[in-house]
Amino acid sequence: MLSKEELLAYCAGARKNYLPHISIDCVVFGFHEGVMKVLVLNVEEGEWYLPGGFLLKEEPIETAANRILKERTGLDDIFLQQFYVFGDPERSKEHFEMYKDILPAGENWFTNRFLTIGYYALVDFQDVNPMPDELSISCNWFGLKELPELKLDHTQILNTALDTLRLHLNYQPVGYNLMPKEFTMPELQKLYETILDKKLDRRNFQRRMLSFGILNRSEQQRKGGAHKAPYLYAFNIENYKAALTEGFKGGW
Amino acid sequence: MLSKEELLAYCAGARKNYLPHISIDCVVFGFHEGVMKVLVLNVEEGEWYLPGGFLLKEEPIETAANRILKERTGLDDIFLQQFYVFGDPERSKEHFEMYKDILPAGENWFTNRFLTIGYYALVDFQDVNPMPDELSISCNWFGLKELPELKLDHTQILNTALDTLRLHLNYQPVGYNLMPKEFTMPELQKLYETILDKKLDRRNFQRRMLSFGILNRSEQQRKGGAHKAPYLYAFNIENYKAALTEGFKGGW
Repeated sequence: MLSKEELLAYCAGARKNYLPHISIDCVVFGFHEGVMKVLVLNVEEGEWYLPGGFLLKEEPIETAANRILKERTGLDDIFLQQFYVFGDPERSKEHFEMYKDILPAGENWFTNRFLTIGYYALVDFQDVNPMPDELSISCNWFGLKELPELKLDHTQILNTALDTLRLHLNYQPVGYNLMPKEFTMPELQKLYETILDKKLDRRNFQRRMLSFGILNRSEQQRKGGAHKAPYLYAFNIENYKAALTEGFKGGW
Repeated sequence: MLSKEELLAYCAGARKNYLPHISIDCVVFGFHEGVMKVLVLNVEEGEWYLPGGFLLKEEPIETAANRILKERTGLDDIFLQQFYVFGDPERSKEHFEMYKDILPAGENWFTNRFLTIGYYALVDFQDVNPMPDELSISCNWFGLKELPELKLDHTQILNTALDTLRLHLNYQPVGYNLMPKEFTMPELQKLYETILDKKLDRRNFQRRMLSFGILNRSEQQRKGGAHKAPYLYAFNIENYKAALTEGFKGGW
């Protein structure tokens, strides 16, 4: 934990540079070969948080979300999607208890009320190399079932991000930055099964996925193996991007 | 426009009671028999805004959204859904120009930077009776194609709400508070066509809608008329509510 002097210096800087009462928290989901993880920061012994921070006074919120994620975890150039604002007046009260013997509430930036804007991202955790900032001990990937308890309302933020991601699968494509350039239908199905945490029917998956028009089938089939060579697919980038903004064809 | 004295008094009250830098704007869509409208406030001659306002310092944001909508339009007990935060640092600059000869920027609450949290709602415009607050000249329903130009970024907020609503139709039910207790399939289809602003195929609509499991078919058919008596449907409330939170069955 910061000393009183360090905390006072941080608060003075924060008041000067940041918008009060607004923060950003990032939920970064990592996938690789059927495994799904989430990125959390270990700030003190036993204290785990989502990577978050504050908005500079004149900074656009998307810029702030990307800057904060980069500063706190080293992850750069990640597509972050805004998903919800958490505004319970009690959500930061845990900080008040934590700090009450160190600084009076009126002097402590962290015991203000904060509305936090949630952003989420999907990355291949093999492609990125998280590095903790100087305020943290470490920055770690955890499987959803091995996750330590998170501080404040960060478990709720994480769960809301996961629910949102799963709902978005019904009308938006995923996988562009998670799949290799060419992939088989079972490989793509595995990604969906990992996110949804359930088995899907192979034929229904293929029929539905093809109906969206976001895949091109390659002329080539994958060689080798004892089974019939599987077809290879690649995303049709134009249709994929259109579906990201307009939703899938085959909606209403 | 407020006089300098009125404006100073408003700003003093606002600083005392509200969280700085955060506002809420509400997009209320009204439907009735195939017509879709949106509710806007006429604050000054030629100045149209979405109904919006500020958060009390200790107020949960959902409470604030409902209070603001009630105060500004008289609409009460409306289910408002959060959909996006608009945070462009330039979004309130129009107010700066408007007020610059009246009050220095530092003294004027309205020329602060505001992040605004967008909420939307769907109502039957025959069921509600909008009443403007004392700051407004009137509170009016406009068809989307007859809408006057809105101030600030309110046209963008409205368009984002409409895009969100249309995407949500792909995985969430609508219509519970917009349809009579019992309705025919063509009546429900009309609601979807109105929101989407396009014609839908009758058979596909019926098949897809029934596949979601949110409708109960009544034993009774509607009497009268020259055609075959149409079936009547009602929403299955339990399944409807589950689909609101979990998405439709028949997703992945």
